[in-house]
Amino acid sequence: MRAAQAQASLFGDPQEPSELVSASPEAAEPAPRPRASGRKARGAEGRREDAVSMAARQREISISEFFTKNRHLLGFDNPQKALLTAVKEAVDNSLDACEEAGILPDLAIEISEVAESRYRIAVEDNGPGIVRQQIPRIFGKLLYGSKFHRLKQQRGQQGIGISAAGMYGQITTGRPVRIVSRVGARKPAHLFEIAIDTQKNAPVVLKDEEVEWDRPHGTRVEIEIEAVYKKGRRSVDDYVEQTALANPHASIRYAAPREEPRLFDRVARELPPESLEIQPHPYGVELGILIRMVKETNARNLRAALRQDFSRVSAAVAEEICRVAGVAPEARPQRLSSAQVELLFRAIPKVRILAPPTACLSPIGEDLLRRGLEARVRADFATAVTRPPSVYRGNPFQVEAGLAYGGGLPAEEPIELYRFANRVPLQYQQSACAITKAALSVDWKGYGLAQARGALPTGPAVVFVHLASAWVPFTSESKEAIASYPEIVREIRLALQEVGRRLGAFVRHRRRAADEAKKRSYIEKYIPHIGDALQRILGLSDARRDRAVEDLKKILERSRKV
Amino acid sequence: MRAAQAQASLFGDPQEPSELVSASPEAAEPAPRPRASGRKARGAEGRREDAVSMAARQREISISEFFTKNRHLLGFDNPQKALLTAVKEAVDNSLDACEEAGILPDLAIEISEVAESRYRIAVEDNGPGIVRQQIPRIFGKLLYGSKFHRLKQQRGQQGIGISAAGMYGQITTGRPVRIVSRVGARKPAHLFEIAIDTQKNAPVVLKDEEVEWDRPHGTRVEIEIEAVYKKGRRSVDDYVEQTALANPHASIRYAAPREEPRLFDRVARELPPESLEIQPHPYGVELGILIRMVKETNARNLRAALRQDFSRVSAAVAEEICRVAGVAPEARPQRLSSAQVELLFRAIPKVRILAPPTACLSPIGEDLLRRGLEARVRADFATAVTRPPSVYRGNPFQVEAGLAYGGGLPAEEPIELYRFANRVPLQYQQSACAITKAALSVDWKGYGLAQARGALPTGPAVVFVHLASAWVPFTSESKEAIASYPEIVREIRLALQEVGRRLGAFVRHRRRAADEAKKRSYIEKYIPHIGDALQRILGLSDARRDRAVEDLKKILERSRKV
Repeated sequence: MRAAQAQASLFGDPQEPSELVSASPEAAEPAPRPRASGRKARGAEGRREDAVSMAARQREISISEFFTKNRHLLGFDNPQKALLTAVKEAVDNSLDACEEAGILPDLAIEISEVAESRYRIAVEDNGPGIVRQQIPRIFGKLLYGSKFHRLKQQRGQQGIGISAAGMYGQITTGRPVRIVSRVGARKPAHLFEIAIDTQKNAPVVLKDEEVEWDRPHGTRVEIEIEAVYKKGRRSVDDYVEQTALANPHASIRYAAPREEPRLFDRVARELPPESLEIQPHPYGVELGILIRMVKETNARNLRAALRQDFSRVSAAVAEEICRVAGVAPEARPQRLSSAQVELLFRAIPKVRILAPPTACLSPIGEDLLRRGLEARVRADFATAVTRPPSVYRGNPFQVEAGLAYGGGLPAEEPIELYRFANRVPLQYQQSACAITKAALSVDWKGYGLAQARGALPTGPAVVFVHLASAWVPFTSESKEAIASYPEIVREIRLALQEVGRRLGAFVRHRRRAADEAKKRSYIEKYIPHIGDALQRILGLSDARRDRAVEDLKKILERSRKV
Repeated sequence: MRAAQAQASLFGDPQEPSELVSASPEAAEPAPRPRASGRKARGAEGRREDAVSMAARQREISISEFFTKNRHLLGFDNPQKALLTAVKEAVDNSLDACEEAGILPDLAIEISEVAESRYRIAVEDNGPGIVRQQIPRIFGKLLYGSKFHRLKQQRGQQGIGISAAGMYGQITTGRPVRIVSRVGARKPAHLFEIAIDTQKNAPVVLKDEEVEWDRPHGTRVEIEIEAVYKKGRRSVDDYVEQTALANPHASIRYAAPREEPRLFDRVARELPPESLEIQPHPYGVELGILIRMVKETNARNLRAALRQDFSRVSAAVAEEICRVAGVAPEARPQRLSSAQVELLFRAIPKVRILAPPTACLSPIGEDLLRRGLEARVRADFATAVTRPPSVYRGNPFQVEAGLAYGGGLPAEEPIELYRFANRVPLQYQQSACAITKAALSVDWKGYGLAQARGALPTGPAVVFVHLASAWVPFTSESKEAIASYPEIVREIRLALQEVGRRLGAFVRHRRRAADEAKKRSYIEKYIPHIGDALQRILGLSDARRDRAVEDLKKILERSRKV
């Protein structure tokens, strides 16, 4: 047996699960073990492993298997969240596709209960559609897509989301994903049913046919999943509302289970400025990455390589980097030694290079943000600020914050903190998020809100923070919280302080106005009595008394204003 | 151009990056864009995308590329944490390998500074070694290993850790991982230098030679990384100490940069009971998984398939499941329809099945846990509890908690909470962890500690929680926090309440003892005066007075005891 195992591992295909070790149920199911025998090493019994028996079990793990077992990393840790995550992934894709194609998004989101704790979600868009040949891989393969390799502000960035949602549906209901897509009025619409072979991380096409569809172009995705639909905080309802808030150019028709569809109509009739793709910035590159870039560039010499593969590197900057490094700009990149690349790497921070271009960013904008807040919450005061772009690890990003105060908002509860990344609402893992950390670090008492140590402020306010970036560093694949890079936390803090200062001014102004009103009522109350007293003392006529009262009022009014 | 792109996507290999779109730097570097032009949709300018141009960019993403960009998911978000994570991954593997081979672990951990913010870490063990052919894939390929597919308590479970540490080293320093391994005294030791081709997620062997090594068997891993070494909380020093605490059978020699090596010698001279591999439990299976299992089983009929592929399913239980489902036990599994499998799936919860076997678990044990705590903190009181095994989603798990109190521990600060999963200390993301959630949910005031609302208790105490499981649900690949499955939180809470009650008893007892001592000193202080008074009043001799004082003391002592 030992010899056979050795052979299996040394000469067999190590990626095949070794039948010798795991196939027999008798071997795998443990014999009843006397727990009382305690902490005795079992080596003597000859059942422990050695290098050869261990090698027989080593094999490749497919990314689909990995996420099947670790589905909570993708946001599928419970049935309520699973529903939200599946909707979110489909909506992200629809909005990204529409914007990339320059189409004002018209979305329909439908959730219907098909059996107890089983729902069918459908997300339909008027986007550019998906070419037929790509549909199976986009929906039936994890880590496949167009967004991962681009530095550009997009909702999706990983190539995992929608196929993972489909995989979760398949795991929990056994049903494939259903897709209808059409790329143009003169092309037919295609209907697909796609399952995932999780061991291979590859699509299995169960249906592929042409169908009639009334849309000239667009995509519809249907997934059946085990789920729970609830209202309230962190619900799909809540998500749709917040998505409408952060995407004022989108029109969303939303049908919750057993309810009349609601329309969230667009507030803006124009698309946001297109976010463009950029090259990486030299300040963010790491040695190992630079070594690879230099090896793989198609440029003929080092100067050209630096210019074409990085953003903000002009010929002059490229020359300067080479000069500081002591490497010839005409050198063939592939011929450089590791040591020379390291010299280049150490030279980069010593050369002044412009900050990365920010055309890759597409913030919501102060005006739309404030209007969105005003439309959503009936507040007495609303403000918004868009910070100038900044950079972390070479990636440009931009922070926006908004704040609404007063009105019908509850005064005795912690403020509500809305978090967004690339216009996508983040609803879970609030405490793990850079936005929360930044909000906790602000001294809100200075701005007229109550705040206990280490807590969010209390008061009638809603705070909105949006991070736009070509690459958002999420704390997990489920994209629920932003990692706390110091540069990001700092920018969020500055944005919050700015809206905080404006709130402070409003609160102080309102307090002063209230004081004024109080004084005024005081004056109005007592001056007539003074008039009566004067009349009695000086023997005035009623008319002169009234005039005196008026004069007194005017004088006091004037002095109060000064 | 449009036609060429269409061709590339429709007929070319979609996994090849399309040169047509991304290779030209001029196209990628955005032209200066007039921001003032505002929110105008750019569709009219013809630069937006359509389905065909988008398809041309869709391609596969390698898992290595994914984690290069998302390295914070693996615990490499900053240089200090990177050092810790790299050490931890190597130590996890060493301890797992030793235990699996039935060898008492002797580890050496060395960290040396090779340049400014660049360190070389080396972890060496006396484990079984790794067979030569497997070394490249284990260290040069993400998602490769022997642990992922087994239900068994192990430190590693993903097949990502050590190769990711190597990849991080390569990214930040350009240096490959160096491995020496030997599987037996009669075999040569092999030295490897391995890099990762991140685009292919495949190892690149840079060196492969036989070397002299004084160990008869074992493995040594060296990784050079950009890092920061610091002392204090969440440091590598701290990690090594906690690892020694949770692994009393291991001996660890630890050499921090520029310091004399320290030895953490083993407290227990025997290995923990071996944790065995188990089959999944029917209660944890999901419909989609069951469909796949039934399709892929090698059993001839359904009864046999249920018996061999699940734990705790006897012939009788298998028959019962089939009976409730209305499916014949003799049916060929591959011939079952989806609807029939769904009937089986719905039948499982209706059949009484024993809880999963717990032989896959290897807790530390109350005795060793308490002794470890006593050795580590000089406390007045120490206790530990090991809960009976429990189950979440079909996975067995077991919780242990320990508590040390008093002594030199600071009385005015929040307690220290040590978290462990499968004997591995968790040092980051405390607030996101199920252990913290459970600790916050306990009413510690009842047990003699101060506690503000929503906060950890304050007082001179250290609390230790260990979760042992065949599959620990971590909140991210970096394995820093445990996901809050309700069953897990509940068990941790019960364990903490038990040590809390014992603490409460101790604190009350000590308080009573203090009261006693106070009373006693009172008595001792006043009785002599009463003696003097009696002497004066009754005219007693000094001897009789002393006797009266003694008698009074005895009487009071006796009545006090009652």
